[in-house]
Parts: sequence; C-alpha cells; structure tokens
Amino acid sequence: VIAGLDARWTYPFIRHEGRRIVILAEGGMAPMGAKTAAGLLRYRGNEVVAVVDADRAGAVASECVGFGPEAPIVRTVDEALSHRPDVLVIGIAPIGGILPDAWRRHVLAGLRAGLDVWSGLHTFLGDDLELAHAAREGGCSIWDVRRPPLPQAVARRGGWPEAHVVYVTGTDCSVGKMTTAVELTWWLRKMGKRAAFVPTGQTGVMLAGWGVAVDRVVSDFVAGAAQAMVADAAAAADYVIVEGQGSLLHPAYSGVTLGLIHGSGASAMVLCHYWAREVVEGGYGVAIPPLDEVVSLYEAVARPVREAPVVAVSLNTCGLAPDRAAALAASVSGDTELPVVDSLSDAMQEVGEAVIRRFEG
Amino acid sequence: VIAGLDARWTYPFIRHEGRRIVILAEGGMAPMGAKTAAGLLRYRGNEVVAVVDADRAGAVASECVGFGPEAPIVRTVDEALSHRPDVLVIGIAPIGGILPDAWRRHVLAGLRAGLDVWSGLHTFLGDDLELAHAAREGGCSIWDVRRPPLPQAVARRGGWPEAHVVYVTGTDCSVGKMTTAVELTWWLRKMGKRAAFVPTGQTGVMLAGWGVAVDRVVSDFVAGAAQAMVADAAAAADYVIVEGQGSLLHPAYSGVTLGLIHGSGASAMVLCHYWAREVVEGGYGVAIPPLDEVVSLYEAVARPVREAPVVAVSLNTCGLAPDRAAALAASVSGDTELPVVDSLSDAMQEVGEAVIRRFEG
Repeated sequence: VIAGLDARWTYPFIRHEGRRIVILAEGGMAPMGAKTAAGLLRYRGNEVVAVVDADRAGAVASECVGFGPEAPIVRTVDEALSHRPDVLVIGIAPIGGILPDAWRRHVLAGLRAGLDVWSGLHTFLGDDLELAHAAREGGCSIWDVRRPPLPQAVARRGGWPEAHVVYVTGTDCSVGKMTTAVELTWWLRKMGKRAAFVPTGQTGVMLAGWGVAVDRVVSDFVAGAAQAMVADAAAAADYVIVEGQGSLLHPAYSGVTLGLIHGSGASAMVLCHYWAREVVEGGYGVAIPPLDEVVSLYEAVARPVREAPVVAVSLNTCGLAPDRAAALAASVSGDTELPVVDSLSDAMQEVGEAVIRRFEG
Repeated sequence: VIAGLDARWTYPFIRHEGRRIVILAEGGMAPMGAKTAAGLLRYRGNEVVAVVDADRAGAVASECVGFGPEAPIVRTVDEALSHRPDVLVIGIAPIGGILPDAWRRHVLAGLRAGLDVWSGLHTFLGDDLELAHAAREGGCSIWDVRRPPLPQAVARRGGWPEAHVVYVTGTDCSVGKMTTAVELTWWLRKMGKRAAFVPTGQTGVMLAGWGVAVDRVVSDFVAGAAQAMVADAAAAADYVIVEGQGSLLHPAYSGVTLGLIHGSGASAMVLCHYWAREVVEGGYGVAIPPLDEVVSLYEAVARPVREAPVVAVSLNTCGLAPDRAAALAASVSGDTELPVVDSLSDAMQEVGEAVIRRFEG
C-alpha cells in the first residue's frame, strides 16, 4: 500500500483491479492540470506506480497535484518500467483529442514492453496500424475508452425512468463536475440511499468500468446515449447522479451539455464552479456571468422538457486560502440563495441534503 | 420543362445539374410530409421525373404536397424507370436514420438499373456490401450525404468572421427552417446584399452541393463544423444565413441546435414555427411554450457567447385558412413584438428588413 492512500479509494462503484498503472501526464502534473491523471490519482491512486512528466521528474505525484499517492514522477515510459507497471494510461487530453507525435514514442515504448494502453483520445489508437501492430507484438491490448458502443440511437419517447436524476453541471470545462458527481453519489450511499454514478466522459468510464464518453458520440445520438445509461443505472438505483460535460456557456461544447441535460431527463442539477475562472477555458473570450444568472439559464433551458432546479453549488477552491474560501462560499450562497459546499473539503453533505429535499421533501 | 415550375428553381445557390431524379418517398407525399422529398420538389422540381409512394400512386406530386412539379407518383422504382431517371434520392428520413428493409429492394432496383443513389440516412449505404456491390455492377455511385468531411475539429478560439451571421431556428423539427433560410438568403440577394446560405442538413446539402449534415458529426465537433462552414461562406458574403437543426425544446435534438448556435457565432436569429404544433414531434410529451418565452429562451442561451436577438418570426401556416393565417400572424406579432411573416406566402421581406435593421441600423 502506497502512503497517501485514503478511504475514498474503496468506493464500491470505482473499479479496484489491482492493476499497476503508469500515467502519461506530460506537462499536466499540477493543481487543476491533467484531468484524467487527476481522476486516476484521486480514485485509483493505490494502483498508480509511476507518472511520466519530464518537467517534474524526481518529484512525487501528491506534491504536484495536492492529493493522491506518493507515486514517483519519471521522465519516460522506459524509466517507469522499473516500477513494474502493467498498464499505461494516457492521462492528458489535448484539445481535439489527437495523439501528438511526441507522445507516440511513449505509447510505443509501453506497448513494446507489454503494457496495456488505455486512451481517451478522439483518435482511436487501436485503429493506428503501427500501434495495433506493437500491441500484437507485445501481447497486450489497447482500450480506446471513447469508442462509442453500438447500437446508437436517438432518444426514445417515454424512455425516461422514474428515478431521481441529478445532472452535475458547471460554469465551464474542468471545474470539478466528475469529482462532485462521484462524491455526491458516495454521500448518498452512505446515507443509505440507492445511488448510482453515471460516467459520461473518458475518466469516469475508466473509473467506473462502464459508461459512454458522449462527446465522441454522433450528435444526433447523444441524448439517446444519456437516456440509455440513465435507464441502466435506474434499474438498481433511486438516485441517478449524471456526470456532466462541458458547459452551456462554452461555445465549443455547449451542445454536448444540453444533449446530456435533456437526454438524461434531469430533474435536479448541481452547479460546479471554479473560483479562479472568470472566462471559459480556451481563449474564446466568453465571460462567465454572475452565478445566479447561470443558475437561471440552466433552469430555463431544462424547463421545457423537465423542471430541474439547481439545488446546490459545488465550489472548487483549489489555490484559495481557507479563510478566503469560506468567505467566497458564503458570498456565493448569498447571491444564489443556494447551499454552497467547498468541493475540496469533501463536504458533500449540504449538496446531498439539498438533493434529498428536492425529491423527498 | 414540367408544368408547375416557377422562378424559385433558378436560385443561384441551388444546384441545377439537369439530373433526372426519382424520389423514394414511401408514405411521405403529403403536406408537412417527407422533408427531403419536399425540399427537392420545391427547389429542384424541374429535375424530378417521378416519385415513389405506393399509397398515392396515380396522383401527381404537386397535388399531394401543394407545390412543385406535376411529377407522376408511382408504386415502385421499377415503374419509375419508364421516366428515364438517372438518380434515385431517398426522400424520407426514418427516426434514427436506418434503412428499413422494405426500402432496400427499391435501392437495389435503382442501383441495378444504373441509377446513382443519394441518401441522407445515418447508416451509410456505401458501406453496405450488398448495395456497394450493386452500385459497382450497375456502374453507378452512392452519395451518402450525411457522411462527415475530414478533418473534424473542435471550434477554435477567434475562428468567427466579421460577417452578419443569422441562425434560422425553430420551435421544433420540421417547421420550415431550411425553406425560410433559403428564401431569406434569396431575398437578401435580390436586395443587392452579398448573402450566403449555409446548409447543415442532408436536404440542404443536396440542394446547395456543399455543407455538412451536422447531426451526423461527432458531438464534440459540431460547433467546429459550424464555425468552419460560416468562415467559408463569409469569404464571399456579408450576410451568412445558417440553416438551423432541431430545436432547443426538443429533448432528442436540442444539443445539435445549441452546438450550431454557438458554433456558428450567430448574432441574430429568426424563429420558425408551425401553427399546428402544440407539442414537439415524436410523442415526447414536451409542450411548446408561448412564443415570447421561446424567443427569450433562445436569446438567453445565445447571450453568454454572443448577443443574438430574434429579429423576426417565420410562421408556417400549412393547412390554415388564409384569413385565419393572417389573424394568427397578427396575434403572434402582438405577443412577440416582432415582425411575423407567413412563410407559405414567400413574403420574406419583413424578415429580411428586420435582419438588415439589426446589422445596418
């Protein structure tokens, strides 16, 4: 057992396979850095034996990101082999999702050493002749986590279950939606509720072992994919917590967001916000409006299909001094008239209570 | 030249190739029926030599849909061969876009007789071994209109041109968005404006000979596809009129709609509505709110990215008595405080004037 392991790594809806994971996170080992790397470190950290990030080689992962295991950071996949990994996870997601040439040598090194490769890129590594050949030679496999399952279909009328569906959304990409969804699911289960986590992105799918990365699904079928996942989850749960994608405010990804809200049949929402984000990620020049306006916008868009009030705000306070974080949470709560939790403190109680109030009064 | 031809068939941005088209429109030859069939009859009607719809065999197309050429309606593709067609267009779009088995024999009959086949289905006919083989044997080709072009990419920051981008949207699917976009483009051109039509669906692409059916694009790349098309169109136009898809109110397709609005960088919108639609198509149980609320919702969703007021309403009055249509238009105009045109009467003037006022004051 690696030092730094905590109880969160035993969540029953997170996989525990005893794998020995090396994460490729070139340039990403920082707070609010590579999302897939962070998700694995946080929730499958006991399986992570090394991280590749040349800039930070020599450090340990927990120092760089602020949580997770003390896994060593090394320069190359070849260097990581001394830690006897059996899987290489691509922990970074370049915009557009294409494998940069510089990363190809890492992947080839892993495959040739017999490591399975898990990738969440838009470009499927298993379809790449050189990589597929290397996997065959190495006797290992490539898992393209974003590859959509078949059949795909549009959302069906009447296909929404009776479950309480909570969509965890955000003011932007990379603000803490997946983490909030996992923590909220876990809190509800601890309270004795039958709650299920619905993964909709590559990291969530790697953690849960099922789900669909909906941003890789043909746009006409996004709502249908969400509907099908919610129906699957609702077969064994009363509360279905859907990991959100993108943001209504993000010009490149807003369509994915809305497809998920309507497709999942959301009847409540939790809004995630990162305190240091005044404009959306990527240089698009889009300002994030005051949070009460964002709440109103989400509710207005959901309403024609299903009434889905935002019941709480999950505030990502990464990098903020604790007293300032508390003051900000109080201020956001005043502005939105909603319960606000600091997602770094793991205190999902107020969010969970707000969710239960919404459905059980 | 077939009787019924009118001047609209000479729009310069609509293709005129002297093809001899037979349309497969099984069950669809009715007012507000098959959309692709209707679009071809309206805008390429002089090239349509026959329509296949067993239910209405013996009638002529214009009687059934209320416009277009007096093309004979026949029972099968084999029967249509006496009219010497050279292309078979699939004019119907089953939900989900898969080729029903019953239509396969029509397609095979066409290919074996040497007809090219144009299809807007989600399932690509060119990838079907039996159909691809028949095409090779028949010496003809299959055009899968929905097949997305490569490369695909997410929307880029700063990728929006200076052009006046008008997004033509609707309260639902199948209400007249494409027709309104074509007519508005044409009206602006007649006024001496450099205006371009951006096709975003399979029928629009068949008519214009370029464009992308965005509902078949991977969801992460919808906004990027819209952005790229607008940039292409803006290279030779000051007014870019974007054909909308779906509706913010439709639970199965709303994501495609929002991806297009934000991706195209819309800075004005025109709202299309079909008077006889109180709930959205498909049995989803979603009521269409009062139009002033729909206008507010569209504007609120666009606003964080770009201010895009709805400047006019295009009312589809198909099936409504003329005096009732005029009264309804007046009432909608009162409720929304917007100019309202009856799209059946071809009077795009008030919409066009509202668009020009938005951008030129």
